[in-house]
Amino acid sequence: MGDKGNPSPRLGEKLAVPKRILLGPGPSQVDPQVLEAMACPLVGHLDPFFLQLMDEIQESLRYVFQTRNPLTLPVSGTGTAAMETAVVNMVEPGDRILVCVNGYFGSRIAQMAVRHGGDVRTLERRWGEVFTPEEIQEAVQAFSPKVVAIVQAETSTGALQPIEDIPPIVHAAGGILIVDAVTSLGGVPVRVDEWDLDVCYSGTQKCLGCPPGLGPITFGPRAEQVLRQRKVPVSSFYFDVSLLPKYWGEERLYHHTAPITANYALREGLRIVVEEGLENRWRRHRRNAERLWDGLEALGLQCHVEKPNRLPTLTTVVVPPGVDELQVRRRLLEEYAIEIAGGLGELKGKVWRIGLMGYSSSEENVDLLLEALKKLLK
Amino acid sequence: MGDKGNPSPRLGEKLAVPKRILLGPGPSQVDPQVLEAMACPLVGHLDPFFLQLMDEIQESLRYVFQTRNPLTLPVSGTGTAAMETAVVNMVEPGDRILVCVNGYFGSRIAQMAVRHGGDVRTLERRWGEVFTPEEIQEAVQAFSPKVVAIVQAETSTGALQPIEDIPPIVHAAGGILIVDAVTSLGGVPVRVDEWDLDVCYSGTQKCLGCPPGLGPITFGPRAEQVLRQRKVPVSSFYFDVSLLPKYWGEERLYHHTAPITANYALREGLRIVVEEGLENRWRRHRRNAERLWDGLEALGLQCHVEKPNRLPTLTTVVVPPGVDELQVRRRLLEEYAIEIAGGLGELKGKVWRIGLMGYSSSEENVDLLLEALKKLLK
Repeated sequence: MGDKGNPSPRLGEKLAVPKRILLGPGPSQVDPQVLEAMACPLVGHLDPFFLQLMDEIQESLRYVFQTRNPLTLPVSGTGTAAMETAVVNMVEPGDRILVCVNGYFGSRIAQMAVRHGGDVRTLERRWGEVFTPEEIQEAVQAFSPKVVAIVQAETSTGALQPIEDIPPIVHAAGGILIVDAVTSLGGVPVRVDEWDLDVCYSGTQKCLGCPPGLGPITFGPRAEQVLRQRKVPVSSFYFDVSLLPKYWGEERLYHHTAPITANYALREGLRIVVEEGLENRWRRHRRNAERLWDGLEALGLQCHVEKPNRLPTLTTVVVPPGVDELQVRRRLLEEYAIEIAGGLGELKGKVWRIGLMGYSSSEENVDLLLEALKKLLK
Repeated sequence: MGDKGNPSPRLGEKLAVPKRILLGPGPSQVDPQVLEAMACPLVGHLDPFFLQLMDEIQESLRYVFQTRNPLTLPVSGTGTAAMETAVVNMVEPGDRILVCVNGYFGSRIAQMAVRHGGDVRTLERRWGEVFTPEEIQEAVQAFSPKVVAIVQAETSTGALQPIEDIPPIVHAAGGILIVDAVTSLGGVPVRVDEWDLDVCYSGTQKCLGCPPGLGPITFGPRAEQVLRQRKVPVSSFYFDVSLLPKYWGEERLYHHTAPITANYALREGLRIVVEEGLENRWRRHRRNAERLWDGLEALGLQCHVEKPNRLPTLTTVVVPPGVDELQVRRRLLEEYAIEIAGGLGELKGKVWRIGLMGYSSSEENVDLLLEALKKLLK
């Protein structure tokens, strides 16, 4: 009896985590105050203290998203879970959805919409470019989609998509707009109400400076109407946002056990965002990105994205000819404890991806990286 | 510009979490060593250190599930996410699924299967009772389901379903068996290989003594065959286990950003399980449950479930006539810092639910609760 046949594994040692400077596409480094919050003892998911904490999180998320949307909460999963939550709640089988694809994550949205039975059309651009309002208008007129989805900050390419001019185009045609702000929220301006975005989502492990595990999302009035008018229930129980407000709202009805400590961390991360102020935070991200770009240029390196469309939170750098990109990354990690990432999808092997997000976005980190690159590339 | 119209919320204070003794249906208390692990700084989700930690987690989960199944991993969501992962991967639209419903969570499995297009039949029992192999055999013969789902430990009723005799019945009819072990894994025997279970899942916040946020799951050879023979892809990208092994296996292909700190906690929680030994752990849970049952009886209180079917990890206690059950719970929390829960679904208002799971399952906690109940009920 007992554990025969399954000998216990050898895990004798306590966890000893190496220190890293995280300058990849996320997770970014986490403020020590946030880590401290994660080590707080647990309370129940219906404890009055936790219910108040949920209110504080919702209130702070509305600030960070710059919205008054009541339906604003963290999905209990990563940014990909938030993306799926957006898609599965807005798209019913047969619904037309236009997805703007200029990188890995746009393509992922399209895949999800196909899985959920959407009638999917993609508008494509080369990886690293952005879309013009005109081409979106043309595609919307030709296809008349119920939903348009676009990525504001393409983590795979480092391009920053201007968003402001798109909502009027989509709304004029009677559609709703989903915006992926995974690598932008808290790092570059995201103004849900002013820009009139219908659904916007993010992850906690990028510019919000928290560990991965929650996916903040907000739904505006048009999106709420889409929810009310659905013909069939959302196929996913876990991601059905018509059920979530029963827990996050006044009823406090059990839906799933909220990840308690991840919410402690998010509350603390948001407190730090509020303390810094959003505008200061956006400025800090831009200032450090420009310091990085100037430094890269001084080293003779080239950015993959044109400067006007460049994302301050994630920079793609062209690997110079004759350089073993994997070797450089390995040495950065082993000799300097710095993590950067390689390219994804069609940029694999061609670029490095350098993230300056949340707590990781500091002058000190930029200088450490530039110095290390200088030595490794000489 | 800036944050006009969205004044920053008042979150001036740092998080100050009250201390609680968690004796509800989960989350249970977390070992201080696990909390300490959560406060470790982050590494990237493709860092060699993290990849090794993933291997350690898989190896330890196989020990805890008592299985050699290669496809054994933690879903990046709560127990409900693991439940949905089981359902959505095994059930294709039109597939017959028989769900045994004797409580809230059986009913939830059935709801999920309906949402995903399954041809669902339920076998029902009163809340608190368990199923006999004979009635399952009869239902299987009458319906010929592709999938049978049953809950081993019904968190809503406190009943422990004997599992051993069910797999042969299901397999003889060519079906596969999903077992919900959310409130049992790590607390009472779960022997995936010896019992020949095809899919089995759990949550981290119950008997494994970790915070909520991950859902361990294992798929056996028959379940893997069902995956390979699917006609349509799984509707959920996030929960598609045909994609997950590419990250958890040798390819290390990005699927989503793993919740780093939650995995630190799980690794540390599993280390503690391994250190205690599964059999010792099962014995501790039973010993403390019996101490509780004896103490409740001495107070003149009655358990809702007959002793032979009673779950050691979660006990339902009948609220005595004339007692305000909510008032008792509120005073337990406010005056004694002890959390227990009320009834769910059709047992709402009729029972209290007392959990003794993981780190919470101790003599000391049993005695503290019994003493408090004695004072509050006199």
